[in-house]
Amino acid sequence: MDAGCTTSYPALLDYKTEKYVLTKNRKVGALHRILHLGSFCYIIGWVLIANKGYQESDKDPHSSIITKLKGVSVTNFSKSKEKIWDVADYVIPSQGENVLFLVTNFVATTGQVQSTCPENPVMLDARCIENLDCVAGDPVINGNGIKTGKCVLYNSTHTTCEIYGWCPVETESLPRKPSLNEAENFTLFVKNAVYFSKFNLSRANTLDTSDDTYFKNCKYNPVSSPYCPVFQIQDIIAKADQSFEELSLRGGVVTAHIEWKCDLDQPANECLPRYSFRLLDTKNNFRTATYYWNKQKLEHRDLLKLYGIRFHVSVTGEARKFGIIPTAVSLGTGCAFLGAATFLCDLILLYLDEKASFYRRCKYEEVGG
Amino acid sequence: MDAGCTTSYPALLDYKTEKYVLTKNRKVGALHRILHLGSFCYIIGWVLIANKGYQESDKDPHSSIITKLKGVSVTNFSKSKEKIWDVADYVIPSQGENVLFLVTNFVATTGQVQSTCPENPVMLDARCIENLDCVAGDPVINGNGIKTGKCVLYNSTHTTCEIYGWCPVETESLPRKPSLNEAENFTLFVKNAVYFSKFNLSRANTLDTSDDTYFKNCKYNPVSSPYCPVFQIQDIIAKADQSFEELSLRGGVVTAHIEWKCDLDQPANECLPRYSFRLLDTKNNFRTATYYWNKQKLEHRDLLKLYGIRFHVSVTGEARKFGIIPTAVSLGTGCAFLGAATFLCDLILLYLDEKASFYRRCKYEEVGG
Amino acid sequence: MDAGCTTSYPALLDYKTEKYVLTKNRKVGALHRILHLGSFCYIIGWVLIANKGYQESDKDPHSSIITKLKGVSVTNFSKSKEKIWDVADYVIPSQGENVLFLVTNFVATTGQVQSTCPENPVMLDARCIENLDCVAGDPVINGNGIKTGKCVLYNSTHTTCEIYGWCPVETESLPRKPSLNEAENFTLFVKNAVYFSKFNLSRANTLDTSDDTYFKNCKYNPVSSPYCPVFQIQDIIAKADQSFEELSLRGGVVTAHIEWKCDLDQPANECLPRYSFRLLDTKNNFRTATYYWNKQKLEHRDLLKLYGIRFHVSVTGEARKFGIIPTAVSLGTGCAFLGAATFLCDLILLYLDEKASFYRRCKYEEVGG
Repeated sequence: MDAGCTTSYPALLDYKTEKYVLTKNRKVGALHRILHLGSFCYIIGWVLIANKGYQESDKDPHSSIITKLKGVSVTNFSKSKEKIWDVADYVIPSQGENVLFLVTNFVATTGQVQSTCPENPVMLDARCIENLDCVAGDPVINGNGIKTGKCVLYNSTHTTCEIYGWCPVETESLPRKPSLNEAENFTLFVKNAVYFSKFNLSRANTLDTSDDTYFKNCKYNPVSSPYCPVFQIQDIIAKADQSFEELSLRGGVVTAHIEWKCDLDQPANECLPRYSFRLLDTKNNFRTATYYWNKQKLEHRDLLKLYGIRFHVSVTGEARKFGIIPTAVSLGTGCAFLGAATFLCDLILLYLDEKASFYRRCKYEEVGG
Repeated sequence: MDAGCTTSYPALLDYKTEKYVLTKNRKVGALHRILHLGSFCYIIGWVLIANKGYQESDKDPHSSIITKLKGVSVTNFSKSKEKIWDVADYVIPSQGENVLFLVTNFVATTGQVQSTCPENPVMLDARCIENLDCVAGDPVINGNGIKTGKCVLYNSTHTTCEIYGWCPVETESLPRKPSLNEAENFTLFVKNAVYFSKFNLSRANTLDTSDDTYFKNCKYNPVSSPYCPVFQIQDIIAKADQSFEELSLRGGVVTAHIEWKCDLDQPANECLPRYSFRLLDTKNNFRTATYYWNKQKLEHRDLLKLYGIRFHVSVTGEARKFGIIPTAVSLGTGCAFLGAATFLCDLILLYLDEKASFYRRCKYEEVGG
Repeated sequence: MDAGCTTSYPALLDYKTEKYVLTKNRKVGALHRILHLGSFCYIIGWVLIANKGYQESDKDPHSSIITKLKGVSVTNFSKSKEKIWDVADYVIPSQGENVLFLVTNFVATTGQVQSTCPENPVMLDARCIENLDCVAGDPVINGNGIKTGKCVLYNSTHTTCEIYGWCPVETESLPRKPSLNEAENFTLFVKNAVYFSKFNLSRANTLDTSDDTYFKNCKYNPVSSPYCPVFQIQDIIAKADQSFEELSLRGGVVTAHIEWKCDLDQPANECLPRYSFRLLDTKNNFRTATYYWNKQKLEHRDLLKLYGIRFHVSVTGEARKFGIIPTAVSLGTGCAFLGAATFLCDLILLYLDEKASFYRRCKYEEVGG
């Protein structure tokens, strides 16, 4: 019968606690305490307080965005005729969704009809010296039409393939200064409603008012008017560290990011959106055309190459609330460290300490078999 | 040589198990058992069964949505002329993507030309008593044009600044009753295909049939026709707890949410989408214009302020399947609790129990050095 | 006074290490070592190396997409008149956002006016034998107009209800071969810029060049020109394992997926996007109309049922970087397994081994109370 073996079997409700060997090793002892302290600080400070590990969260709210641009601008349209641009003219698409394009500059090619004309020499594929360079029926790569097989004069300096297509072709001469530069004074209204299904929480970024003129006259200010999401274009561009003058010339893409952080363990009125604006891309343009028929029932179109700023409104949100499960998990993972600490100290004591061999023998108690 | 120290060094394959001190302390013993039981229940019941912790999941499927609205409606357009509205007229944009706008009401301002006229007094900035109040060249804030500098009669009651812009300006007189109220009988077809790349799983919410007329005549029913995603507008509005009558007057935003929950450890036919509808926002309108030229080659436009319901179809999905790694992780984190339980009980035994000091001494075995 | 109880209280900095019972049980010993080895392999191999558990990651970048289609196509429009289609004609919407629709086929119904005509017999609801079958004022379900109450001849074989609506109604006769089959040679330019806010990292998939013609003439190749995101339509369709010939006839939905995987612990130039293409849906079409007024100021419209391929560009990204916290968590959870291993071995030794009862007694040391 070995030393320290119980004579009877342990009963179900006897509490068994590990037997410890008490060493007077101050160094490892101190290390052990420090590691334990560290683990506790990590659990309390980081997991629970910094990361709010005791809360469960809903990170994808249903979100609805309604945008509205306001303002008017005067331009000298083709044939140097003055033209007023209002919302219906310069916002594309007009539905006011989360992506909207504000026209700031354009190249107009009016009165195009389907016929034959020389291709633009910008298309390398269309440059030619003689007719043989232009294979009839071939489309011009990235070009405006189908080659007719003739090589004709484009202007005093260039000869290019004649094409069948919408003629005359667009001549890429971008105005030096943006045509709609009043646009910087336009205002953008961004109405956003979010719904966190997990907590059945609905929030909106607009003041719930019956006064219809409120949003016509207010302007966003995080302190004085946090519930008036009306931004002036030039402010937005400025916040994105850009100059409207440059950006409006060749266009760009600006993201307006709305971030909701709602801690339901806090008073609800602290759950306010934060707005941030970033330039995502420079140069942004596309072509669109309006079609009409003249008296001879011949189809014409006005081709517009529109340069402008695309606003991309994105919404992210996170709602947090105390939950027992996440708390348990956070503590659980934290506990693992306490074990790790002991594990580490044992290694040191049993294999690195100068008296390691002695401790190693004393840590273990031999039993037969 | 201290008591209970091994004479030889432990060999590699000797198994070493903690030495326990057996106390007859029933209270702590019971607590210990209870905590262990709790941990087990948590691991098995919550982690494994409730949260399916043994499965790995793919939470963002590639998704394709095709929507189609069907129906016709009669309205009395400007000049009190009867007009038929069909899909091509009242759905904007027409492409049938995940966001579509159903026109239910509108304010039409027909035959606008670019000239001068008095601004709408709704714009506070445009109200005036004398010409000095109207600085020539200034745009009206949120208004419809550029001030000419004159202060003119708007109607018997108001005088406003004259502007250069699209005239006559829009007069905001919203019809009391929605113009397209047949819209409630329109049907919305929502075709959705999802693909879970992680499990290479493709699913669609439509019946795979060759019969072209099937979707023309079926209607969604979770039991009888789960694969016919055709919804009547009024049903959708009703499911969102709204009245079509009210909503259609000033417009709104309704989200149609499609949720896929596919457990690949179950038979595939249980992997069906669930549909839910919510009102995200009230009041929704935008302006759009159609342009044309009259005989005198003068550009006119019909300005429409369209009120309507925007449907926002969103898709979320989750596919789950047994995986060895997630199982391991779930068990691993769970195990941490067993350790925590012991840790807690020791604290009680060694520091709170009335015989704590005795236990504390006996838990530890002194060795020299 | 029991055996092995300390005479003095343990001091704060004394290091206490578990007392182990040394058994000569080779089987369990080996198992224990194996399990420990397994845990280590799991932590090192899987958690740290395979899953990069030592890094923190930002999984939702802000993303901007600009798309541009290039190419021209000839069709025989209604009245068998040759017609050139260029970008402004066949791309809908024209803004060049992440979703674009390429027209590949169409059914044109030109010169519709609002009047009365027989409904298309495809609508079951519109078929009739006598006037009584057509209730005046009822809309045809999924149909094109409101019944007038008359039952009239549609053609030699059918009689259908007369309707008031846009007449003549569309006759669904889809061309056997796609009208715009040159479309396969069109090129799609996908410009994508991403921004990882967590690491303040911006990346673009385009070469940062001042040469404007570069993107006009290059073509994507993962090796030779990774920064030229210009794809030929037929290549895209091929990569999605489809035949353009079939797909273009009835349309479809193709997703172009851009995936960014950026490991900031690696040199930045390894952070390149990967492109993948998949067919999400077959059959895709919608109706759109262009309106115009004839000499008699009567409103006409050309109704187009457009078939085509919708390209859906989606972007996902993940940026990873070493972080101390994730490392700690990964190790922590891993440690739990070591505990689990010991726990398991004890169970075997104390309850399954043939000498279990002996070990059980010797594991525990009895103390009074």
